This record gives sequence, C-alpha cells and structure tokens, in this order.
Amino acid sequence: MKIGMVGLGRMGLNMAKRLARGGIAVTAYNRTVQKAKDFAAEEGPNASAAESLAELVAALPAPRIVWLMLPAGAATDEHIDELLPLLSAGDLIVDGGNTFFRDDIRRHEAAGKLGLRYCDAGVSGGIWGLAEGYCIMYGAEPDVAAVLKPAMEVLTGPGGNLHTGPVGSGHYVKMVHNGIEYGMMQAYAEGFEIMATSQFGAGLDFPAICDLWNHGSVVRSWLLELAQRAFTEDPRLESLEAYVDDSGEGRWTVSQAIENAVSAPVITASLFERFRSRQPNAFQDRVLAALRNQFGGHAVKRKDGHD
Amino acid sequence: MKIGMVGLGRMGLNMAKRLARGGIAVTAYNRTVQKAKDFAAEEGPNASAAESLAELVAALPAPRIVWLMLPAGAATDEHIDELLPLLSAGDLIVDGGNTFFRDDIRRHEAAGKLGLRYCDAGVSGGIWGLAEGYCIMYGAEPDVAAVLKPAMEVLTGPGGNLHTGPVGSGHYVKMVHNGIEYGMMQAYAEGFEIMATSQFGAGLDFPAICDLWNHGSVVRSWLLELAQRAFTEDPRLESLEAYVDDSGEGRWTVSQAIENAVSAPVITASLFERFRSRQPNAFQDRVLAALRNQFGGHAVKRKDGHD
Amino acid sequence: MKIGMVGLGRMGLNMAKRLARGGIAVTAYNRTVQKAKDFAAEEGPNASAAESLAELVAALPAPRIVWLMLPAGAATDEHIDELLPLLSAGDLIVDGGNTFFRDDIRRHEAAGKLGLRYCDAGVSGGIWGLAEGYCIMYGAEPDVAAVLKPAMEVLTGPGGNLHTGPVGSGHYVKMVHNGIEYGMMQAYAEGFEIMATSQFGAGLDFPAICDLWNHGSVVRSWLLELAQRAFTEDPRLESLEAYVDDSGEGRWTVSQAIENAVSAPVITASLFERFRSRQPNAFQDRVLAALRNQFGGHAVKRKDGHD
Amino acid sequence: MKIGMVGLGRMGLNMAKRLARGGIAVTAYNRTVQKAKDFAAEEGPNASAAESLAELVAALPAPRIVWLMLPAGAATDEHIDELLPLLSAGDLIVDGGNTFFRDDIRRHEAAGKLGLRYCDAGVSGGIWGLAEGYCIMYGAEPDVAAVLKPAMEVLTGPGGNLHTGPVGSGHYVKMVHNGIEYGMMQAYAEGFEIMATSQFGAGLDFPAICDLWNHGSVVRSWLLELAQRAFTEDPRLESLEAYVDDSGEGRWTVSQAIENAVSAPVITASLFERFRSRQPNAFQDRVLAALRNQFGGHAVKRKDGHD
Repeated sequence: MKIGMVGLGRMGLNMAKRLARGGIAVTAYNRTVQKAKDFAAEEGPNASAAESLAELVAALPAPRIVWLMLPAGAATDEHIDELLPLLSAGDLIVDGGNTFFRDDIRRHEAAGKLGLRYCDAGVSGGIWGLAEGYCIMYGAEPDVAAVLKPAMEVLTGPGGNLHTGPVGSGHYVKMVHNGIEYGMMQAYAEGFEIMATSQFGAGLDFPAICDLWNHGSVVRSWLLELAQRAFTEDPRLESLEAYVDDSGEGRWTVSQAIENAVSAPVITASLFERFRSRQPNAFQDRVLAALRNQFGGHAVKRKDGHD
Repeated sequence: MKIGMVGLGRMGLNMAKRLARGGIAVTAYNRTVQKAKDFAAEEGPNASAAESLAELVAALPAPRIVWLMLPAGAATDEHIDELLPLLSAGDLIVDGGNTFFRDDIRRHEAAGKLGLRYCDAGVSGGIWGLAEGYCIMYGAEPDVAAVLKPAMEVLTGPGGNLHTGPVGSGHYVKMVHNGIEYGMMQAYAEGFEIMATSQFGAGLDFPAICDLWNHGSVVRSWLLELAQRAFTEDPRLESLEAYVDDSGEGRWTVSQAIENAVSAPVITASLFERFRSRQPNAFQDRVLAALRNQFGGHAVKRKDGHD
Repeated sequence: MKIGMVGLGRMGLNMAKRLARGGIAVTAYNRTVQKAKDFAAEEGPNASAAESLAELVAALPAPRIVWLMLPAGAATDEHIDELLPLLSAGDLIVDGGNTFFRDDIRRHEAAGKLGLRYCDAGVSGGIWGLAEGYCIMYGAEPDVAAVLKPAMEVLTGPGGNLHTGPVGSGHYVKMVHNGIEYGMMQAYAEGFEIMATSQFGAGLDFPAICDLWNHGSVVRSWLLELAQRAFTEDPRLESLEAYVDDSGEGRWTVSQAIENAVSAPVITASLFERFRSRQPNAFQDRVLAALRNQFGGHAVKRKDGHD
Repeated sequence: MKIGMVGLGRMGLNMAKRLARGGIAVTAYNRTVQKAKDFAAEEGPNASAAESLAELVAALPAPRIVWLMLPAGAATDEHIDELLPLLSAGDLIVDGGNTFFRDDIRRHEAAGKLGLRYCDAGVSGGIWGLAEGYCIMYGAEPDVAAVLKPAMEVLTGPGGNLHTGPVGSGHYVKMVHNGIEYGMMQAYAEGFEIMATSQFGAGLDFPAICDLWNHGSVVRSWLLELAQRAFTEDPRLESLEAYVDDSGEGRWTVSQAIENAVSAPVITASLFERFRSRQPNAFQDRVLAALRNQFGGHAVKRKDGHD
C-alpha cells in the first residue's frame, strides 16, 4: 500500500512518519520542499519526497490515494483544484484536515463528476498521536472505507478508527468531538479556579488532586492527566498568559446546534470564554460601565486615571 | 409627618431632600455630622440635623419613624443595634438600603419582640430620583404600609410606590428588579458590541440608533435613553475602562434562582460578565491555554514573552 | 409619490394602509389576490390592487418603487427573480422583510448589474405599527435613502426612521435589535419566574409590579407595559403553553457574534431557551439521566412507568 | 483497626463491606436495624451490628472512629447531636456524606470544644466503588489524617485518597469535583444531541463512537465508557424520561463561584439544564410567549387548544 501525503505540518508530518514506520509506503509533498526531503531522509525505505503535486501523483500506483493534511481554510481547496486534473478515475482523495463537513459534501460531488472518490477523516490525538496512535473518524462510501482500512489501522491503535457513515459524517463527528472537548476543558478550568480562589486555595495541591481524581473518581479522563502535567510544571500556571485561541470546530459546533435547534449552553459558553480571554478591554463591559454611571452615578474607571 | 433619616450618602441625602421639599419634616443623622448640618442649612424649615442617634430619636414624635439608608453590609445591623434600646413600642424602622430579604425577616422578628414595627423598602431611581421621583417597593404589615403611604407618595411620583406584601417582599422584588436590570444591560451591551465589530461598525451612529429604537421599536426603554446619553458623550466609549462592579442584588438573585430551582441563564451570565470584566488574567483561561498546549502543542503566550 | 407593495401579510397590509392613509398612493399585490382587492376597497383613493407583478409594475410611474414585505425564506428571492425582468434601470426595490443582511448584499449586486437600485429596511413595531408608527432602520446608497425619506416619515412617527449606512446595514441593525429583544424578554421572564416561585410568590401582584416599575425604576420599558397587559389578562399566564417560537434574527445575531468573535451569552441563552421550550423530552436530558444511572445507580424515570 | 459505620444506604453499606473485606473491623448502625444485621450476617467476622448509637459507641475501642454516611440534609446533624454525649475526648467523627463545607467547619468547632476530632471526607465512586475502590478527598488535622490513612487505603485503590488540607477542604474539593462532573456530563449530552439531530443522525452508531473516542481521542474518559454502556442498552435512550435530578453539590459549587466572584458559565448552565428538565411548563416560557403575542400578534398555544 502506498499513500501520497500532502502537507507536512505538525499533524501531517507525524502521520506520515507513523504510516511509514507501520509499513505503508508514503510519498510526501510539502510547499516547503525541504520538509519532505527531511522526512524521506529520516524515515528510510518507506518514505520518499515529491517536489510537486504532479511528481507526487506520478509516484503513486493507480488507483491512487492522496491524503491531504492542510491547515483549515482555503489551502485544501487550492490543493484539490491543482490535484483534480492530475488524477484519474478511481483515485481517492482523503481530507484529514479540520474541514467543515459541508465543504466535504461539496468536494465529494465535484470529485464524483470526475470519477474520483473522496473520504473525510477527522483526526484527534494531537502531538501524542505519533507515539500512541491517532483517533480517526471517517466518512466515505463503504468500498472506499474498506480500501482505507489498513492505513487507518496503522495510524490509530486498535479500536481507534471508525467509519462513521457517508461523506461529511467523519468531520461532523470530529467537529462535535471538539465541541465536547471545549466543554470538558472549560468545566475543569472553572473547577480549578473555584478551588484556587477559595479559603483553601493556597494549600490545595493541584497535581495531587488531578492524580487523585484519576484514581476512581467520576471525572477521571485523559484531559485530567494533561492538567496534572501542566500543574506539575507550574502549580498556578503563573508563567502563562490568559489567552486562548479557538480553531473553528467550536464555532461550527455552535452553528450546527443552532441550525438543529438544539440548546448547547455549555459548548457555547466555552467558545465565548475563549473569545473573552482575548479581549482585555471588551466593548460590552464599557457599555455596562457607562450605563451604571448614567443611572446610578457609579464611578467608572477612566483611561486617563480619573474617576 | 416627621421622619428621622439615618445615612446621608448619595441615596439618603437626596431622599431626605425630596421629603423635605415635599412638605415632610426630616431630622437627619449621619456619622459625619457635617453632612447632616449642611442638609439642615440648605433645605430650610423642614430639615434639621441630629448629632447622634439618641438626639435623632428625641427629635421625633411618637410613634417614631426612622428610615435607614445605609450601605449594604454590616452598617445597618450596627445602627439597628444602637437604635433598638432608644426606641419605644410602636416605633417604626424602615430599611431602605440594599438589604438581603432574609435579613429583613430576621430584623422584623427581633424588632417585633420589642413591640417595634419594621418595613423593608427597595428603592430604585439612582441619581435621577431627586428630580424625577424614586420607585419604591416595600414590604410591611398593612397598617404599617398605611402609615408610610404619605411619605412614599412624596418620595416617588404618582404610581411609583407599591406595598408588595409582608416584610421581606419589598427587598425581594427590588432584588429581582436589579437582576432583570443586569440582564437588560447585558443584552444591550452585547448588541452594541456585535454592531461595533461588524463590517458596518465604523459607520454606525450609536446615539442615532438609540434614539431611533426609542421611537417605536420593541426594545425602547429608559436604559436605552441612558445609552444614548453615554454614546453622545463618547461614541465608542473609548475613555472608559472595561471594568464593571456588582452590588450584591445580582448575586442574591442568582442564589434565589438556584434555591427556587429556576433556570436563570441570562441574569447569571450578566453577573458572570461583570466578574469577568475585573479579571485581566483569569485563572480559568490559563488552565485552558495549558491544556491546549499539552494535547496539541498549541503555542501559549508566556509572561516572559516567549512562546 | 406612489409605491408598489408586494405581500399583504400581517406586516405588509398594515404598512400599505398606513402609507395610503398618510397620503402616499399604494398599488398592492398579493398571491391571494382577494387580499389586495379588499385593501383597495377599504382604503379608498390612495389604494389600488394589482393582479400580477406585471400589472403592479405597469401601474407605477418610473422610476418605480417596489416594496417587498414577504415572509423570511425563499419567497423574496422568487419574487425578485420574477420582478427583475419587469423593471427598468433606475427602479428601486425595497426589501422590508426579515432578511439576512448577506442576502441583501447579494441582491444589491445582482440588481446593480441591471441598473436597479436596492434598499434593505428592517421594520420593528409589530401589530402596533399601524396606529403608533413603525420603527425603520434602512441601508441604501445616500440618493436612494433620500428618495425613500417621505415614505419612511409616513410609515414611522417622527424620529422613527434612520438611514443606517450602506445596503445590508439596515437588516444588520434590525437583526441585532431583535437579538437584544430576545435578551430583554428573557431577563424579564427569569425575573418573574424567580418571583413567582418565591415564598412571596402567591401574594405578588404582577400587573401592579409592572406598573410600579414603569414609574421611575431602572427597568422601565415598553416590553414591561406589554407584560402588564398580559398579566392583567391572566395573572399567572395559566392559559398559555410554554412554547416559544423563534424567527431567524436571533439565530443570525448569535452566528454574527461568533463570526465577529464576540461573547454574547445573554442573547444566546435567550435563543436556547426558546429551543428548549419546544423540547418536552430533550435528548440531552436523557443522556444526563442515563449517565447518572450508570455511575450512581440513581433512579431514572422510564417511559413505561418503572424506575 | 475498628470503625463504627453509621448509615447503611447505597454508599454506606458498600463502604462498610469494602472495609470489612479489607480487614478492618466494622460495627454498623442503621435506623432500620435489620440492614445492619444483614450486613453482619453476610460479611462475617469483621462485620458486626449495633442496635443503637450507644451500642455502637460501646462496641468501639477508644479512641473511637465513627464514620457517618447519611443523606444530605438534617440527618447528619441529628446523629451528631445524639453522638456527642456518647463520645469521649480523643474520639473521631468522620462525615463521609454530601455535606456543605461550612457545616463541617461549624461541627469541627463544636466537636473541638468537647475534645473530639473531626474529618470531612468527600467520597466519589458511586456504585462502582465496592468493586473498584472509591476516590476519597478528606480534610482534617494532620494527626487525624494519619490515623485514618489505613482505612482510606482499604476504601480506595492505591492513589485513590488524598488529605487535601484542613477541615472543610475535603468536602470543598468534592463539591467542585461534582460541579466539574455536571459540566462534563452536559458537554457530552449536548454533543450527542447535536449529532442525533444532524443529517447523519439516524446512521450514527453511538456505542461505536463512544468506543472510538475512548481509543486515543482528546475526550476519552470514564464517563464516556458509561455513555457507551447506556447507548449499548438503548441506542437513543428512548426508554428514559428526560428528567434529571440534582443533589446539592452543583448548587453549592455555583454559589461558591459567586461568593469567590468567579465566572462559571459551564457548571451553572449544567445545573440550570437539570432544573429545566424538570419543568414541562416553565413559567418563563409562558412569559416569553405572552410578550411575543402582545407585541407581534404571534400565535400562542393555549391550553384549551385554541390559538
């Protein structure tokens, strides 16, 4: 089995390595070509580099499998536009990036008109996936899923991949996964802040509490193991800025909740908290302060330091 | 009719003035005595000053009416403890401060054992009350309510006072009033921020939009008139810090919602936003950033400026 | 001045009446033609009916003004598709429905290619608008706004219309208006439920409290006047089902908040409460019940009546 | 080592069994005495029954250890009031129930005046604790913690108990644990509902998705294992009512967040959803419906079936 891997960012590179180490030949392409060459040099006989998409396609046996691991946004569409004329009927495109499921459905239809096949694969596991195996949920027609199964098994540990349904379902399930992840992270974050600010706060040993809770409590989880690692390094996280990015799936999850008329207060609040973390001088708070001043004569803090 | 007014802060002083100007004699006491003397000097024949609670009580005809306008917290209990031995059966204590309704019920019981009467009065109207009339909701036994009615009429405009029920109900209704106020303010604040951050944001004339909405729209309100004033002074409130205090009633409203098993997401979110406005470096956000870094290798912002 | 009005639903009919009564000639078209005929018969010399869009266009002097008041969704696009070939360069389409602002921008571009002009008008005021005047915020190029001004003045009372900026801005501001409306309504709703469920609940006179608060309190508003009317008819609203529709703008407001990376917890919670009101057997609650049963052996309620 | 166990409910009985099976003698008391007798009969030499608190105290060697496992509420205070005169200086009371931490601090002070010692133990693990070990966080003075350590080790697996700090800290940490638990459960519940209501919903295999996510995904957890069990029994939980109880700790967590001025939107939303699940005819929704009807003439659903 041979796979063409397009995109050697943090996720793509490690996935290419895991495939090659697991016995699946990988030809890799990356806009910065050196990354692909390094991959080929380091990973040995199963790993090779292509200097262009055309070279990548030429290096693959038909029917080809081209796996895209590109940043969210326009990059995937650009690469697919470039790939489509290079591929032949029966070839298979796998999009493993963070893609909105409706884009998968659109691309699947466009590819289908050319006789190409399509699979959307949501990949979880982050920087731990190389060593411990990824977790992959993928949408595809059944025969496409069967073709990909051996590669999926190598990328994930046993039990770590699932054919979720038709094209789009893989990224849909992954999107919801990330929404849940937002909610779980926020639940822990609130809990630790409530403890930190309590009368017991100074004395509470957060790494020990994480470790404790992971021994038999209801909230035990992998995220809590990670929290333990973080608190062990820095018990009150004083080295960090209170700044939290979001990566798209959380926003999509909320928008789908709204589309489905589902109340999703926890996932939404988690997303909003991330927005909030990036606003040191939120307009809404200035509106509140201004209104309090107007009706109650309550002091406001002014930028010039006067009340 | 004569009333003893205890506490000449922002609210108490203006209420004493409105009573005196409305033909009700007021003897005022304030810890900083000069404030009471100034009041007496400025407001003329209906206004006098007492230098102690004992002097205040002595200046009032029996059965006495003593109206407390003290900051939330222990001050009211301290003053009542000092007043109780000075008063006689049939005298009436009115607590017009921001008091938790359970404290009213407790004080009513204690006062009742001494033959004293009690009324809890929630007062809205802020700095506008002196000129435009306050809005007062008060809890008391029916005969007590009848005694107070003339003073209430002077303090409020027509229609601006209501006997809400037994002792405690006045402050309960006022507490909920403030919870609703939090929610309404936050609704406007979010709306203006969504407009300010939109593609139309730079061109939107907020004072004009406030004025427009107050002419026939569903969201017309007095708060919106105040927003118009604030935006007229400073169209994007750039002179203000995004710092919002809270004064107790919002917290009590949420705690009562929980006690009553009522879902109150809007009032609660409004309270939390105020907390959030005062946390430039929220612990919960650092927990989120740390977790993202742990599982995804996502960059975190470090205080020392390194990623 | 003469206007062609397309769509005689609850809003369109009353707006056509107000225009005609205000001295602006109106030719009306409605799919169910009888409605237009009734309008013409009832409203006299300024009112006439068209049996088709072509007849409507033919009845208008160039440059024509065609005002669409159609239900949200596809109807507006269908009518515009039918109108475009009937209109001539310089004619003006006004969309007064509940339209997503991006659809306005798209239609404006399409109309512009044909030399047509476009205005998006957000209309608030509901069933009260006919008698009391609507509140209209509209986006258009400045010369288009000037053309429409006389009609706007008739539709609204003085001060009730505003040219908010370029095409799209009218519906954007109206969208946010409705988001704020959701939040204000929910704030009141929570407050009244917290009062109703309190120890004072049975004795609280809600119409009287609404009336009180509208005399000098911080939360006075038109919505509170409406609440007073509703509580006067039915003091605890026992005749109503707890079922609340939503009409699109709330969803759009939240989606724009997310697009603008603005935290909007109150508007979102208000939307979610409406979703929740329509779910007597929410799946999420069954998940919670199932999980509690799994870890704690907590009793669950089963549909068959067994624990 | 010998322990007196008071209260043989779901938690107490299993904990007594686990202690006895682990080599710690247990004398058990329960208001319904037969339960204690059954325990003694079934669990053999390490297990005995007392028919009264006096008999229980008499059966224990000094300094005594009495472990209370009583339902939340007044029961614990009643039992402690009955116990205090029976105990002697140096004896130790352990409260393992769901107790508010301020009650622990109060009881600790009262017990201390009699020379008694006190420990508050928060116990997680539910019905799984007997077989797999509980997770216990406990607050006590250091020498008290040392005395209890052997019993803690038997009750929990290795790593499953932690001395968190002074009296009160055990129940505080357990309270926050449950708050986090609420948030995590709600995050999963929302996610599964968003999937169930999607266009892929009918085809999604929830037990398989749970199993998948527990193999390498970021959201892997024990709660997800439980969800898998629940969905395996009933793929869409159609046998369950959407009714979710709450047990106190969630409410306390939110009240502590408010007391600490910490924004906790996720934990609070999770609590409110439980309230909401128990309100088929929420008053707040009827207020919303009434207001929409008042301003927009929107149809309301009436109980009598008329619009």
